[in-house]
Amino acid sequence: MPASSADSAAATLEALLPEGRVLTSAASFAGFLHDEGEWAVYGDPLAVVRAESTEEVAAAVRWCAETGTPLVARGAGTGLSGAANAIEGCVVVSFERMNAILEVNHAERWARVQPGVVNDDLRAHVAQHGLWYPPDPASSPWSTIGGNVATNAGGMCCVKYGVTRDYVLELEVVTGTGEATRLGTRTAKGVAGYNLVGLIVGSEGTLAVVTEVVVRLRPLPPAPITVAGMFDSVVDAGRAVALVAESGISPSVLELVDRHCLKAVDDWKHMGLSTEANAVLIGRTDAPGEQGQFEAAELARCFEEAGASLAAISADEQESEALYAARRLAYPALERLGPVLTEDVCVPKARVPEVLARIEEIAAAHNVLIANIAHAGDGNLHPLIITTPGDDAARGRAHEAFSEIIDAALAAGGTVSGEHGVGTLKLAGLAKELSPVSLAMHHAVKNALDPHGILNPGRAIPPLG
Amino acid sequence: MPASSADSAAATLEALLPEGRVLTSAASFAGFLHDEGEWAVYGDPLAVVRAESTEEVAAAVRWCAETGTPLVARGAGTGLSGAANAIEGCVVVSFERMNAILEVNHAERWARVQPGVVNDDLRAHVAQHGLWYPPDPASSPWSTIGGNVATNAGGMCCVKYGVTRDYVLELEVVTGTGEATRLGTRTAKGVAGYNLVGLIVGSEGTLAVVTEVVVRLRPLPPAPITVAGMFDSVVDAGRAVALVAESGISPSVLELVDRHCLKAVDDWKHMGLSTEANAVLIGRTDAPGEQGQFEAAELARCFEEAGASLAAISADEQESEALYAARRLAYPALERLGPVLTEDVCVPKARVPEVLARIEEIAAAHNVLIANIAHAGDGNLHPLIITTPGDDAARGRAHEAFSEIIDAALAAGGTVSGEHGVGTLKLAGLAKELSPVSLAMHHAVKNALDPHGILNPGRAIPPLG
Repeated sequence: MPASSADSAAATLEALLPEGRVLTSAASFAGFLHDEGEWAVYGDPLAVVRAESTEEVAAAVRWCAETGTPLVARGAGTGLSGAANAIEGCVVVSFERMNAILEVNHAERWARVQPGVVNDDLRAHVAQHGLWYPPDPASSPWSTIGGNVATNAGGMCCVKYGVTRDYVLELEVVTGTGEATRLGTRTAKGVAGYNLVGLIVGSEGTLAVVTEVVVRLRPLPPAPITVAGMFDSVVDAGRAVALVAESGISPSVLELVDRHCLKAVDDWKHMGLSTEANAVLIGRTDAPGEQGQFEAAELARCFEEAGASLAAISADEQESEALYAARRLAYPALERLGPVLTEDVCVPKARVPEVLARIEEIAAAHNVLIANIAHAGDGNLHPLIITTPGDDAARGRAHEAFSEIIDAALAAGGTVSGEHGVGTLKLAGLAKELSPVSLAMHHAVKNALDPHGILNPGRAIPPLG
Repeated sequence: MPASSADSAAATLEALLPEGRVLTSAASFAGFLHDEGEWAVYGDPLAVVRAESTEEVAAAVRWCAETGTPLVARGAGTGLSGAANAIEGCVVVSFERMNAILEVNHAERWARVQPGVVNDDLRAHVAQHGLWYPPDPASSPWSTIGGNVATNAGGMCCVKYGVTRDYVLELEVVTGTGEATRLGTRTAKGVAGYNLVGLIVGSEGTLAVVTEVVVRLRPLPPAPITVAGMFDSVVDAGRAVALVAESGISPSVLELVDRHCLKAVDDWKHMGLSTEANAVLIGRTDAPGEQGQFEAAELARCFEEAGASLAAISADEQESEALYAARRLAYPALERLGPVLTEDVCVPKARVPEVLARIEEIAAAHNVLIANIAHAGDGNLHPLIITTPGDDAARGRAHEAFSEIIDAALAAGGTVSGEHGVGTLKLAGLAKELSPVSLAMHHAVKNALDPHGILNPGRAIPPLG
């Protein structure tokens, strides 16, 4: 729309909300344009609403429904698939100001929070009461619970403790027609009505706008024992993962980091990390007492059987924390080297070694650098395709590699996204994964809950073929 | 419809399917008319299809869509809310012949089964491989995985291990327009597309017909330690439950059985159960080694603090199994005494004692016998309202008590159904629990996935107000 009519449209939105809520100047949009999904498209919003209440969110949604304006809900913008990117002419609803922890119930073990609460802030708060919110995406120091809900975020602890959806009991949402309602129940069990909570978690803001979340908590687990394994190749490390899966134990963490990642972290943070191994597995067990000892020994045995050059049960908590921190820092460290295209395929655990080998072939064939971090115990691989800034040819090759990794994962019985979501970057991949009948069901649900087609349109589900 | 046109309609359905699949005579309908939901309404079907393949199910659904005929999918008919009851003039699709265990993958820990597999048959089969399918409704010797999926069945182990939905990775379904598709992924994690699997689980056959299920398995847990507590009142037992919830331990079972139940079981099976206590709590821990010892001691401590007359950590596995078996037999034992109206409310754990006290008041006020069994550790209460056969006045009073228990649960922040589902018996209760906006969302989803309105219409969600 021309600038003047955009201005007058934005003015009618501004008039509905208290002063200071609505940003309308292009200069003020800088922090609200895109997430961390490298190369995902984004446009210029019409306005940014920094909402402070459910009522304000509902007013924005109703305005969008009346005017046919796309609405993009936004947490901290740490997503990796472009799902929170501004759409040309959209309203961005930012939850930065709705960041209160409203209530913690110790006996029933839940917390009621606003969507803008940062994941680590919630974790720190409930830890004071001996409680734990498990989902721990690597972005936890920055990402918000609302964003975690929108993407069904995973993390390191998922291998034992599950993903965000497993911890969401109740939601308050604003529907696609601008009405607020609560969904779900805080009780331990409940089958009253359809599982709309589980449907909305992971729907990337395309079915409703989440304005409050009740999350289930657990007691804090015992201090973990860490087992590190050094491997000559990522494929050997993958074999160790398959052996752990066969062993029947339940590690609380099983992460893979390759040499590229360790080097990038060490170059940045000077942590004195060894970069002699080509791949490191970081296993942890938080099982209590003798069971913990047993599981740690089993992890070491699996690492050795797969050919680890070193498998050590850590006596040194400092060293173990350094390795764990290195895993968390891998992504920002690699981003310093140039644009990173992040893969997120998830494959059956027994197929991890073969898919890692295939990724090496793909890197060689397309002459791109692919670093690997992985929630290996889940089969959730994050090949990171790194290119030189400004090298358009490399960028084209990276996209080809990205697409071939998806094909390799699907061929191995995997899925295009384990935890980062579809956004726009995985739309083409998802179109390969879903049957035409399933895709039609997705669109039927989308149209049912968002009849005006305004909630983050074009994201999360590919267009009908 | 008149008998002759019903006959000719049934004949067109018969013509679509192989010989022997379609029953059309009223005399053959006896085993397919209703489930165990006492007093839930049912009608006479037009036909019963004993399907042997997904294609046959799809053909039946398409015929129903073309003719506007309601379709009721049926497992073993052990449901307790009337969801599998025949609708007047409907087609019942029975899964009794689709009962194969198709595949077990040990390394990835899943099993692929047809919906007609009996829960205990699956459990016995995978136990041979050291694997475990946790959801264990009391009906597990008879109920089918398809029925468990339709109702999102719970059971004894849910308090630690979750419900059916937590174990369903992938579904094959036939849609409301008669098309077959797979949904979900077998990988440990996946966020590709909407969570249609989680939406369909628990939807009581109203959104799709499930024709194949891939369930997640776990390693078999260690042998449990059992702790029994005898209480002078169910309210004291409820206080013990609240104390366990506060303690931070994770019992693998925490069941309540009252004297009425123990007596009914003992009168029937002559197991020599003590009926001196007014309520018994059966706690179990399957934590390994010293953690198990600790949790057993904690259970005993909580029981004693709440005023148990006896709290014993069982050294005698036989005695412990007898108590556990008594819990499983409570429902059929009580059914022998007369029609049983089964409640299934779920309340916050800390509110268990107050709601149990309220149930006693309701029983007294309406002069009805209410026996109590409960998945107490989940706050999932099963007050069983027992009446004398043929006593219409008692039946009316039972319905009033049923409705007041629902009100008491909702007032305590609970839900109308923890695990039995809504069917027809809980429609009025659910209408009280859902907001008008939430109910409208339910209908939008129902209409989207069942555009002809043929899939178990009138069940699971109340009509729009």
